[in-house]
Amino acid sequence: MSRILTVGGAQLGPIAPDESRESAVARMIELLHEAKARGCGLVVFPEMALSTFFPRYYEEDISKMDRFYEREMPNDAVRPLFEAAEKADIAFYLGYCELTPDGHRFNTAILVDKGKIVGKYRKVHLPGHAEYDPNRPWQHLEKRYFEPGDLGWPVWRCRDGVMGMGLCNDRRWPETYRVMALKGVELTMFGYNTPDRNTAAPEPNHLRMYHNHLVMQAGAYQNSCFVVGVAKAGIEDGCMLIGGSCIVQPSGEIIALASTLEDELIVANCDLDLAKMGKETVFNFAKHRRIEHYGIISSQTGVVLPEGV
Amino acid sequence: MSRILTVGGAQLGPIAPDESRESAVARMIELLHEAKARGCGLVVFPEMALSTFFPRYYEEDISKMDRFYEREMPNDAVRPLFEAAEKADIAFYLGYCELTPDGHRFNTAILVDKGKIVGKYRKVHLPGHAEYDPNRPWQHLEKRYFEPGDLGWPVWRCRDGVMGMGLCNDRRWPETYRVMALKGVELTMFGYNTPDRNTAAPEPNHLRMYHNHLVMQAGAYQNSCFVVGVAKAGIEDGCMLIGGSCIVQPSGEIIALASTLEDELIVANCDLDLAKMGKETVFNFAKHRRIEHYGIISSQTGVVLPEGV
Repeated sequence: MSRILTVGGAQLGPIAPDESRESAVARMIELLHEAKARGCGLVVFPEMALSTFFPRYYEEDISKMDRFYEREMPNDAVRPLFEAAEKADIAFYLGYCELTPDGHRFNTAILVDKGKIVGKYRKVHLPGHAEYDPNRPWQHLEKRYFEPGDLGWPVWRCRDGVMGMGLCNDRRWPETYRVMALKGVELTMFGYNTPDRNTAAPEPNHLRMYHNHLVMQAGAYQNSCFVVGVAKAGIEDGCMLIGGSCIVQPSGEIIALASTLEDELIVANCDLDLAKMGKETVFNFAKHRRIEHYGIISSQTGVVLPEGV
Repeated sequence: MSRILTVGGAQLGPIAPDESRESAVARMIELLHEAKARGCGLVVFPEMALSTFFPRYYEEDISKMDRFYEREMPNDAVRPLFEAAEKADIAFYLGYCELTPDGHRFNTAILVDKGKIVGKYRKVHLPGHAEYDPNRPWQHLEKRYFEPGDLGWPVWRCRDGVMGMGLCNDRRWPETYRVMALKGVELTMFGYNTPDRNTAAPEPNHLRMYHNHLVMQAGAYQNSCFVVGVAKAGIEDGCMLIGGSCIVQPSGEIIALASTLEDELIVANCDLDLAKMGKETVFNFAKHRRIEHYGIISSQTGVVLPEGV
C-alpha cells in the first residue's frame, strides 16, 4: 500500500518592504508552474509570503502597518495564485497577515484546494516582544502586531491525507506537533521567517539552522508525520533570513533540502502511509501515553519550582 | 557567572544473564574511580545496571524473574557502590528493577548523594508488550514485568542544580522533558537499554542511533537543559544494544560521546548556568506558552480523528 503525494516546498527569497503583492504572487505562480511540471499535488509557501517581515520595524501606532495585512482572502492581488493553483490541480499552504473585519490582527496560514480555502490557522506561539527594544539590532515585534491565534491546531483531510499547519516559532514547541498528532495528522506544514542570528541573547549563529532542522526532525519522528518547513530566505531589507527549507519524513530524516537563499522549489514524493508505522508501534499513543502524569503541561504556563527545590 | 558541574556518563558493556550483582557493582566502582580522577561530581549509570535486560525473555509466571529485582536499596550487593561514591564525593544515578514490599514491580532509577537516596523515579513510558509475541526475534516485555511508574517526574536540587530523571523509552516522549522543565529542570538523566534493531516493525537499523540522539538533543534544546543519556551497550546474551552514550548541552549539541560498546566513561564540564539563556528568552514558558490550546495533551490518550476528517 502507498499513498504518494508529491510535495513541493516553495522557498522565497527576500521580499523588499516596497515590493507589491502582485510581484510576490507572480513569483509564487512561477514556482507553482515548476511544481506542476514536477508532479506536485501540494505546495507549501512561506510565512508572510505576500510582504516583507515587517515586525522588524517599530511603529507606536500599529494601524500604520495596516498596509501589510489582508482584509479578505483571496483579494484581487492574490486571486491569480488561487486560479493558477486550481488550474494546475495543486493544493497550497500560504502564510499572510490577516486583519479581520472587527479589527483583530493575526499571523495566519491557509490551506487552499480546488479554489477554496479548506483550512485556516492563526499562529499560536508568537515570538519576540511587544515594546521597542533598544538592545536589538532589529526588532521582533510579533507580540505587538498580532494577537495569539484563537483557532488552536485543527487538522483537515486534503489530498487523501490528514494535514495540519503551524507557523515559524510554532515549530520549536513540541506541543504544536502533539496536539495535531492526537488528531491523527500525517503531514504538518510550517512557513517561517527566521533571522540568521539570535537578537535576544548571544548565541553562535550556526545554531540557527541546526535548531531549525532539529525541531522539525524531532517533531516528525515523535509524532510519526511528515513535516514541511519553508523559509522566506536571504537578505530582506538588511536582515539575513536563514533558508534551509526542507521536507522531513516520519523517520525524522530530511528527504529534500533547499540549496539557495532564493526562490527555489524543493520536491519529494511523500508516501503518507509511512506515517502509519510509528503511529502503530513505538508512538502508538493509545498504548503508551500516560496522561495521568502530563497534567501540568496544559494547566501550568510558566516554570514553578516545587517546594523545597 | 558559572556553575560548573563535571558530569560523567558511565556506559556499561553487556551484563550476562548469570553475571552477579557484585560483578556489575565492581565494574561501576571502577568507572567511579576513573570519574573521581577526572573531577566528576555526578556520574550517570545505565538503566537496569545490576542485571541483564531480562524483559527479552518470556516467563508465564512473572515471579520467576524475581531474582532480577531489588527488594531494598542499597542492599548488601550494592552498598559498596554507595560507599565508594560517598567517599569520592560523587552523586550518582543508578537504574535497577524494584520489587516493593507489597509486591509491585517497577523499572526504577535513583539519585544518590552523600550516601543517601535523594530522589527516586519509576519509569512511566514502558515500551513493548505484555504477552509473548512469536513474530519477534526476541521479546520486549516491559509491559509484562513492570507497572507504569506512579511517581510522575519529580525534580530535586542536587549539586547546586535542579535535576530530573527518566528511563530509556521516556526520552522519546516530549512530555517527559516538558513536565520536568515546568519544574525548572537544568539537567535530566536517562539510562537506556536499546536494541540495535526495531523488532516491532521493519526499519533501517541506522535509525536506532539517530533517534536516540535526536530525541535527547531536541529535549535539551526545547527545554533548555542538559541531557545525559547512558547506555548498556554491546552484545548482551545475543542481543546487540546500541551505545552512543552522550552528554547534550542546552543548545542541543552533543558535548561528549562514547566511542565503544564497552564499559566507558565520558566526561563533560557542564555549566548549569547555560540552561538560563533559553529559559529566559525563546523558551521563556511564562511569556510564550499558550496552555489554552494544549488541553488534549493531558486529557486525551490516543488519537481521535475530529469529525469530518
